Amino acid sequence: MSVPERKQGEDGYLAWLPYRRQETKEGLERCKAYRQIVVAAAAEDGGAVIQSAAAELARGLESLSGLSAAVVNEGEVPESGAYIQLALFSSPAAGMDRLFPAAVRTEIGPEGFTMQTEADTGRIVIAAAAPAGLLYGAFHLLRLFAAGQSVDGLNIQENPVNPLRMINHWDNMDGSIERGYAGKSIFFENNRFKADKQRIRDYARLLASVGINAVSINNVNVHKQETLLITEEFLPDVAEVAAIFREYAVKLFLSVNYAAPVEMGELPTADPLDPAVQAWWQRRTQDVYAAIPDFGGYVVKADSENRPGPFTYGRDHADGANMLAEGLEPYGGIVIWRCFVYNCKQDWRDRKTDRARAAYDHFKPLDGRFKDNVILQVKNGPIDFQVREPISPLLGAMPSTHQVLELQITQEYTGQQRHLCYLVPQWREILDFDTHLKGNGSTVKRIASGELHGSRLAGIAAVSNIGDDANWTGHRLAQANLYGYGRLTWNPELTSSAIAEEWIRLTFGNGSEKLIRTVQQMLLDSWGIYESYTAPLGVGFMVNPDHHYGPNVEGYEYSMWGTYHFADWQGIGVDRTKATGTGYTGQYAGPNFERYESLETCPDELLLFFHHVPYTHKLHSGKTVIQHIYDTHFDGAEQAERLAAQWEALAGSMDEGLHRQVAERLAEQAEHAKEWRDRINTYFYRRCGIADEQGRTIY
Amino acid sequence: MSVPERKQGEDGYLAWLPYRRQETKEGLERCKAYRQIVVAAAAEDGGAVIQSAAAELARGLESLSGLSAAVVNEGEVPESGAYIQLALFSSPAAGMDRLFPAAVRTEIGPEGFTMQTEADTGRIVIAAAAPAGLLYGAFHLLRLFAAGQSVDGLNIQENPVNPLRMINHWDNMDGSIERGYAGKSIFFENNRFKADKQRIRDYARLLASVGINAVSINNVNVHKQETLLITEEFLPDVAEVAAIFREYAVKLFLSVNYAAPVEMGELPTADPLDPAVQAWWQRRTQDVYAAIPDFGGYVVKADSENRPGPFTYGRDHADGANMLAEGLEPYGGIVIWRCFVYNCKQDWRDRKTDRARAAYDHFKPLDGRFKDNVILQVKNGPIDFQVREPISPLLGAMPSTHQVLELQITQEYTGQQRHLCYLVPQWREILDFDTHLKGNGSTVKRIASGELHGSRLAGIAAVSNIGDDANWTGHRLAQANLYGYGRLTWNPELTSSAIAEEWIRLTFGNGSEKLIRTVQQMLLDSWGIYESYTAPLGVGFMVNPDHHYGPNVEGYEYSMWGTYHFADWQGIGVDRTKATGTGYTGQYAGPNFERYESLETCPDELLLFFHHVPYTHKLHSGKTVIQHIYDTHFDGAEQAERLAAQWEALAGSMDEGLHRQVAERLAEQAEHAKEWRDRINTYFYRRCGIADEQGRTIY
Repeated sequence: MSVPERKQGEDGYLAWLPYRRQETKEGLERCKAYRQIVVAAAAEDGGAVIQSAAAELARGLESLSGLSAAVVNEGEVPESGAYIQLALFSSPAAGMDRLFPAAVRTEIGPEGFTMQTEADTGRIVIAAAAPAGLLYGAFHLLRLFAAGQSVDGLNIQENPVNPLRMINHWDNMDGSIERGYAGKSIFFENNRFKADKQRIRDYARLLASVGINAVSINNVNVHKQETLLITEEFLPDVAEVAAIFREYAVKLFLSVNYAAPVEMGELPTADPLDPAVQAWWQRRTQDVYAAIPDFGGYVVKADSENRPGPFTYGRDHADGANMLAEGLEPYGGIVIWRCFVYNCKQDWRDRKTDRARAAYDHFKPLDGRFKDNVILQVKNGPIDFQVREPISPLLGAMPSTHQVLELQITQEYTGQQRHLCYLVPQWREILDFDTHLKGNGSTVKRIASGELHGSRLAGIAAVSNIGDDANWTGHRLAQANLYGYGRLTWNPELTSSAIAEEWIRLTFGNGSEKLIRTVQQMLLDSWGIYESYTAPLGVGFMVNPDHHYGPNVEGYEYSMWGTYHFADWQGIGVDRTKATGTGYTGQYAGPNFERYESLETCPDELLLFFHHVPYTHKLHSGKTVIQHIYDTHFDGAEQAERLAAQWEALAGSMDEGLHRQVAERLAEQAEHAKEWRDRINTYFYRRCGIADEQGRTIY
Repeated sequence: MSVPERKQGEDGYLAWLPYRRQETKEGLERCKAYRQIVVAAAAEDGGAVIQSAAAELARGLESLSGLSAAVVNEGEVPESGAYIQLALFSSPAAGMDRLFPAAVRTEIGPEGFTMQTEADTGRIVIAAAAPAGLLYGAFHLLRLFAAGQSVDGLNIQENPVNPLRMINHWDNMDGSIERGYAGKSIFFENNRFKADKQRIRDYARLLASVGINAVSINNVNVHKQETLLITEEFLPDVAEVAAIFREYAVKLFLSVNYAAPVEMGELPTADPLDPAVQAWWQRRTQDVYAAIPDFGGYVVKADSENRPGPFTYGRDHADGANMLAEGLEPYGGIVIWRCFVYNCKQDWRDRKTDRARAAYDHFKPLDGRFKDNVILQVKNGPIDFQVREPISPLLGAMPSTHQVLELQITQEYTGQQRHLCYLVPQWREILDFDTHLKGNGSTVKRIASGELHGSRLAGIAAVSNIGDDANWTGHRLAQANLYGYGRLTWNPELTSSAIAEEWIRLTFGNGSEKLIRTVQQMLLDSWGIYESYTAPLGVGFMVNPDHHYGPNVEGYEYSMWGTYHFADWQGIGVDRTKATGTGYTGQYAGPNFERYESLETCPDELLLFFHHVPYTHKLHSGKTVIQHIYDTHFDGAEQAERLAAQWEALAGSMDEGLHRQVAERLAEQAEHAKEWRDRINTYFYRRCGIADEQGRTIY
């Protein structure tokens, strides 16, 4: 039966799952051939996940082929026919032992899958140890179909590299999203859960399609109303949402208020060593698990940016985290404890305190003190998701403690989804960074995956960039960041370029090679471009206070937030060396310490993060600092204009509405990049009076 | 009959009208002697105002004497007794012709009064041409009693110098106050009028006691709800408030939304030349006067800071103002049209546009074009109520146009009632400024009063500093600004020092000479102190954006608001000269132009407003600019501490609660002054690298 070709997600709602009708005869025939899906799984629990897998395949192939597709009984397919079979290893389906011998099965982890094309029949069998693997396999296969690739002779084994692959939402129950740039919350409005849950279901599909297996749905800054999420008032709603995510193998977590017993007026204290407090959390946690038996656990921001925590009671973070962990332990739940702890009431006159040191100074001494179901969540950099930061020295520095790496998908400091900034290259750099903590090759990706220290719990979490805008992310191209985050978290070896191409083909189809290459290049260039016209050489900030959008060189220079650049008429930068500065460099292992400590070896892009230098200092590039600032800013603004021009050249090769939406954002970016250029250049020219070598206009 | 001594307004609610029990036997006896008030006025209309006058005298003397006082019939006082008589000139009371012969009467204007003590009887007669004069006379007499002065042989003639003596409220109907620092609105809450009107009545008393005769009750930024104040929905409420003010001879005005016909969805345009628009305003105005026959008129902020105006329709401000004036004319109403018009979307890169020029450039060419019931309201300075600005060159520059001077009582840029800043000395400087527009002696006070150009309508308006805080003004000592504004507006020849003493005696009593002299000195020093630790040498701004509190040297440097200082490594200031700058100086009349144009004659305190100079430029004081900045900031912070210490020394000489409240504010000021000192000094030290001659700590 033929299905009409529908408008395939030009408003962006379908994101990378529009499964466009295949453009080539060959591709179309291929999709037509595989329109029957057979489930040979019959798992007792997880049946819903397997059904999701089968339904996704049917839906996808229907869309790709333009003909109806269906999940059918084994009896309904011709014995020799080309169909797709989903089978758990435990299933009695035909040929399982032959296709997936024990040697293969042992290589497939609890969330992995293997996939083979039977040479004689053309049948594709996706097999896994557990339902989630089948779901991931289904999406993997759909990607191949959508990319127009051959599916002959498939022989694939895939396991996610990171056990925890998580999204953190910073959604508030009033519907607002802290650092959200794509509309309101899809979960909450008016201090309640939204009645319509369809959008959550569609979101769960998106997450599962890129391998995300955990989500926390509320802001880590837990305000009054959100404190009640773990109470009878809201647990039925939470359970309903958890059930939706469960069908897509995504575990639900909640951010909790460390001071909840006090905030709710039930106890006079939240002291973690007080037995009444411990009992309170145990009781509350029991309630949570009564409602959601597979609840993931708690995310906690404590003693951070005015949030309450164990410090209030003279306890440390291990005391605090362990107390919560104890309540979760019987149910297999975990505590994700954020390490974003620093003095946010710093006096700018105090040059000794260094915010960059704070996480390491606070947590490193606690290594070994945390219970086995506690994970510390460590931001990628020591400050706060800047366009360029060194790697947090805390990552991997606590061998006896579980850690999860925290990234930020939402573009808080990287253009707020009004500027194009494809972040996968940044994340690749982070993951590939060698900490040297256990000799060469002690990369962050081996720390994140838990491999380096043999951690039981490990992985990556990131702050969501979605909201209730029709296209989820505001800027349509920002969808690539959510997509890329999931893919990279599944497999950190995927290249930025390959991920970009995958996303582009899924989103725009395979029809125009020019479109694919142009958008790919735009994505790959964008982070560098954004960096070039914003804060230079790793110094960070220089944004407007509070909302963090747009240039303001002195916006944080005299604030309490610990983010300074110390620019004067002679030079700029923060001396964080051990020899003469705050000593932050000493938190790095040998080779990294030496590299950052020395002005000679410190990489240019991080120079001002580690050193205070005169404007006339020569970079490795051969340019002076001041000329580098001028050049990158003139160049960056030009490149931003080029992005807009590149996109302009694609008019006609895609839906007009889609083209216009992105074109408008790129035009805003090009204009705003000039504002960045002029404010930064003018600021520094007024600072030092050194003229641009090329005599360009500086105000 | 004796009345108990009550707690006399220590929470500040009674402000300067607590009429404390007299401290000396003599003072007490005097007040006791005059506890009978006789009204011999019998005016048909205005009876309520006369009753207010009599009631105020009775209330005041009761409080001053501690014995009951009363308004009595003429028959009830002994023929030779010492009582107070209120009489209109037209009254048939005994001895009027003898006491107030025609020569005296002709010198008393419609709001003036005369007052005499009859030598033989001791009777004090206050006489006036109209009821308002009796009210002002009553408060004048009470001031004498409260100050413990003799009332023997009084022979006083008083007329207010300024015809319009107005307060502008920037209150919104949601209860918020734009630039309010003393709580919420006393008029509105939750988008309605407040039910309880007692506070409005008490406020009307305060205004009348210092001679205010006009009030506009809503914000000049007229939002959606406030647009409806001139409709049937709210006119009954407005009329009720007008009736309260009427009893105290205060006329009520409303700020109107220039685009009201459009905003209310009744017309597609607000074009002032469109007959439908003219008819709309005539109809609406008719409704207003039907509800409030003595309604004052409209206050309008048009084409200013994103407010709509005639520019939208290609018309000018004369077209706009005259259209409204036409509707008001039949009823004797007036339009008060604000001249605060400038481009608030300026590009900081554009060095030619100068916000300081804007009011003059916009309005000067329109001289003679305005109807006779239009007054242009001109801010004292060309920018916006900074601690130090030159006088607006527009003041007096339109001889054929009525003008009113606008001041700001609320301390938007002068410490927001958390810092002490007695503004009367600033206002005195403004009023005493010689514009030279009609030769020497063409002072602003003669322009404001209407005398210089013989204007029919003239006066002074100012933005209120009150809210629903118990003490009206937040900082108790900020009451002195409201008091001083009224008194100075009545008589611009009163000295800052005399006004301060009046206010202190009324507020704190005459008990402690030390208290009086200390507080007087604190008040008189405070403006200079505030100036010394904030933006230097007239350059202005350097505050945090939006809320305008606290130091931020570059807070407005790259904004759209047109308020720049152009500091670089060599120097600072705005070149507004005709020779090399924006030409703003050319808006001044000869001698002032010359004085400001030349670096040699430009006064130090305005140097950076008019000139861009190197930090090494020598001031008339002999100091360099940079050393001046350092010195004034170190000194200012010290002086702020001294203020706190001076106040501390008064502990025990007043109510403890009152003392503590002010002490807390002064402590905050002292601390905040250090933040100002360090941020300004550090900023400039980092700018130029020139060390402080005295080697004090700069960060």
